[in-house]
Amino acid sequence: MNGAESLVRTFVGGGVNVCFANPGTSEMHFVAALDRVEGMRCVLGLFEGVVTGAADGYARMTDNPALTLLHLAPGLGNGLANLHNASRAHSPIVNVIGDHATYHKQYDAPLNGDIEGVARPYSKWLRSSISAADIARDGAAAVAAARAAPGQIATLILPADTAWSEGGAVADVPPAPAPELPQGEAIDGAARLLRNGRPTAILLGGRALRGEALVTAGRIAAACGASLFAPYSMPRVERGAGRVPVERIPYVIDQAAARLAGFPQMILVGAPPPVAFFAYPEKPSVVTPPGCEIHRLAEPRHDLTAALAALADAIGATRTPPLLQERVRQSPPSGKVTLAGLAEVIAGLIPENAIVIDESITSGRGLLPATKGAVPHDWLANTGGSIGIALPLAVGAAIACPERRVMCLESDGSGMYTLQALWTMAREGLNVTTVLFANRGYNILKSELANVGAGNPGRKALDMLEIGHPDLDWCRLGTGMGVPASRATDLDSFYAALAKGLRTDGPTLVELVL
Amino acid sequence: MNGAESLVRTFVGGGVNVCFANPGTSEMHFVAALDRVEGMRCVLGLFEGVVTGAADGYARMTDNPALTLLHLAPGLGNGLANLHNASRAHSPIVNVIGDHATYHKQYDAPLNGDIEGVARPYSKWLRSSISAADIARDGAAAVAAARAAPGQIATLILPADTAWSEGGAVADVPPAPAPELPQGEAIDGAARLLRNGRPTAILLGGRALRGEALVTAGRIAAACGASLFAPYSMPRVERGAGRVPVERIPYVIDQAAARLAGFPQMILVGAPPPVAFFAYPEKPSVVTPPGCEIHRLAEPRHDLTAALAALADAIGATRTPPLLQERVRQSPPSGKVTLAGLAEVIAGLIPENAIVIDESITSGRGLLPATKGAVPHDWLANTGGSIGIALPLAVGAAIACPERRVMCLESDGSGMYTLQALWTMAREGLNVTTVLFANRGYNILKSELANVGAGNPGRKALDMLEIGHPDLDWCRLGTGMGVPASRATDLDSFYAALAKGLRTDGPTLVELVL
Repeated sequence: MNGAESLVRTFVGGGVNVCFANPGTSEMHFVAALDRVEGMRCVLGLFEGVVTGAADGYARMTDNPALTLLHLAPGLGNGLANLHNASRAHSPIVNVIGDHATYHKQYDAPLNGDIEGVARPYSKWLRSSISAADIARDGAAAVAAARAAPGQIATLILPADTAWSEGGAVADVPPAPAPELPQGEAIDGAARLLRNGRPTAILLGGRALRGEALVTAGRIAAACGASLFAPYSMPRVERGAGRVPVERIPYVIDQAAARLAGFPQMILVGAPPPVAFFAYPEKPSVVTPPGCEIHRLAEPRHDLTAALAALADAIGATRTPPLLQERVRQSPPSGKVTLAGLAEVIAGLIPENAIVIDESITSGRGLLPATKGAVPHDWLANTGGSIGIALPLAVGAAIACPERRVMCLESDGSGMYTLQALWTMAREGLNVTTVLFANRGYNILKSELANVGAGNPGRKALDMLEIGHPDLDWCRLGTGMGVPASRATDLDSFYAALAKGLRTDGPTLVELVL
Repeated sequence: MNGAESLVRTFVGGGVNVCFANPGTSEMHFVAALDRVEGMRCVLGLFEGVVTGAADGYARMTDNPALTLLHLAPGLGNGLANLHNASRAHSPIVNVIGDHATYHKQYDAPLNGDIEGVARPYSKWLRSSISAADIARDGAAAVAAARAAPGQIATLILPADTAWSEGGAVADVPPAPAPELPQGEAIDGAARLLRNGRPTAILLGGRALRGEALVTAGRIAAACGASLFAPYSMPRVERGAGRVPVERIPYVIDQAAARLAGFPQMILVGAPPPVAFFAYPEKPSVVTPPGCEIHRLAEPRHDLTAALAALADAIGATRTPPLLQERVRQSPPSGKVTLAGLAEVIAGLIPENAIVIDESITSGRGLLPATKGAVPHDWLANTGGSIGIALPLAVGAAIACPERRVMCLESDGSGMYTLQALWTMAREGLNVTTVLFANRGYNILKSELANVGAGNPGRKALDMLEIGHPDLDWCRLGTGMGVPASRATDLDSFYAALAKGLRTDGPTLVELVL
């Protein structure tokens, strides 16, 4: 068996069953091995940012790594931006990067490059595997590294001759070590804060925003009158009617500071302290109030569910009923498009148990409050601030959860970075309904220009912030890649088009002109 | 004056007049400064690979750096693939990468990342500028570094507070040192080879493929009966009727080896020794015949024009008339689309002094022979093998040479990586006529799969090589970004559409279905 086949068999045996791929010549033996091994679904992306963003979406929904298959240093480079986002989401991912044959590297052929150098900034584990006898063991180690809590990016470089040479030997993927419980003093310290009678913000990160951990957080909050928050850059939160409600910290620095002003203490549960997304002249970098006592109950690598259970136990809240979100029903709004109106349309149409992907930026500022009482659903956000994640995330989430509907809320500026994801949705027949908010601009930058004190923009500056002239026609872009698309210009047509899309098998797109 | 303004004034004063940009919040002060300073054209790209590829195209046509303006580590990551190609073209480029304010870095906000780590693999010069007082001097040094022969990539990291703080002081860009002449023995050695009577291949790289250097190479070849070659990955060659003809080394390894088999000696003029693009089992990495004596007349950093002049002098060929390509006229072909037929259509329609950008891959295998006798034109190819360069290159070349027509020959697989370039063509009204070869596949990979001995592909492997299901509709993709587009399915409609496009002001696209 050649190295490539031993590697694919090792992955499949170790429970890695999806490969998002944009291969080239150096990956052909790996591709050929996919034919010979059952159990690996292979999904083509026409751009590497689609591949890495899809792997992130898959990981967020399964807590299990997918593979990416990428072509040498430039292919990895194209995937870096969404690996940045994935690293901030603590998503487990195994990158397999093909390289030239080991003996060919010395000739510095045109595609030769420093793959390790490109990989290092976003790889917690990185290895170049130089023999067919080692590749399966290296692949197994990569999977284990990706699964190490809280989830990591592992990059395995696969020279072509390592793939094609005989001598491969399938390896077992070692089990990932169970995540640790925080130190007892971290739990005691949090319990002391919760008993001191002062207002407490509890900031939940990672898996604390879901499942049993979230319910336990709700018990603690109910018992102590604490407030539950999520970071602005939240990877995935379970929300809607019947769920423990969590409030997202706003993006806008003044709003974030105002919202947190009343909290002299904060408990972090697998989340970093909240800070300004960017620095602004004369404004603080930290959004908690001066003197706020910040206590770390658990780091992201800890067992957040167990940490919250221990805290609930320490304060006697293990049976306290949590406050649960009530169902809110609204009649569909009508007429001219407003931010409040479009949010109501979406709130009314989110399908039961849907996965909502949100990169709506300025257009979606009203979405979270409006949808809090919708039917239960998951909400995935951009975790690293590199725009162009939503469409790829939707691909990965839909592959991970074929039984669930995906609603993808994308903006025109962001969508253009990775629009190729629409093609993958079409090829795979994914049940993704995309709403494309077309405001014809990087509108967030217009407010940021003012926020950073750069003054009133002139024509040249404005041209860098507006993406009209010419307007993008997302109906043509969507249908050009095989995704049926329509345009809505008022709330009535938006409601009708979105409702129809959500009833349709396969992907659809609604361009909402703002 | 703030740091940003001092930097922009330094660039303009130093002869850097074009900025290809995809900015974010951290670059807002730089963008605002563009409003206050005359003399910098700013061109927006909706994806960073468009930005870096356009800078490459601009550099290849002007031998002068343009700026790229990119947003933190992920923005740079998205630009890496075409920086890879630019580095192989020895294109001078100055990247300006915005970063968080220096004091904000410690908080590790979501977009924080290792910009230097991402930049290092493709930056010959790299600096993070931490004060407004230094930034202009650092920017001047970056320009000088970019201009150092043969042309380099320089990356300047610009923290937001460096840009917005007062205390900027405009700096002078030091002149780039003149490129050196090779050692006398390198010239003598080449002269000895040319006099020994054995067949000689002269491989021309970089600027040796243009202007006076090319004419001199033609004199040498004529005097000695040597054969002139260009690397497969040639950055820019001047060709067509009345020019010194140069033969490109084929991509396909067996063809390359067969073509060079008759040459026991080769002289390199600013080009690396020719090697296989990829390694293949049981095939050599080197395409020159065994025992071929390879002599380096000049490295890429040398003055290639002077080196060739010295060699011509050494062999007494300074007045030898070079062989010049004759004009070849063909009547337009008709009927079914064939590779030979489409090449003839293109050959007949290349406008005088046009810039032809070629990333046609398998569809364009017949293009160079067919167009050798066309009217004079420049031909730009993919230099680093990272596909997705042609559309961005066309943007940069058209900005560099507004008086010339650009014909962009792109393939569907490659085009999808950076299709956003079409929007920039539309916004800027560039005279770029794109031919999109739609073969619905990564067809080169099908032959590569066989070449690497990976056997007959099954369904899963084929799905990774075919980009149909669904077919891309490039007419919709083009018009969706503001570029008028039409489809041709035979040579007659192709001729008519391409001729019309070349008469039209602004960009057009012809999808040629193969």
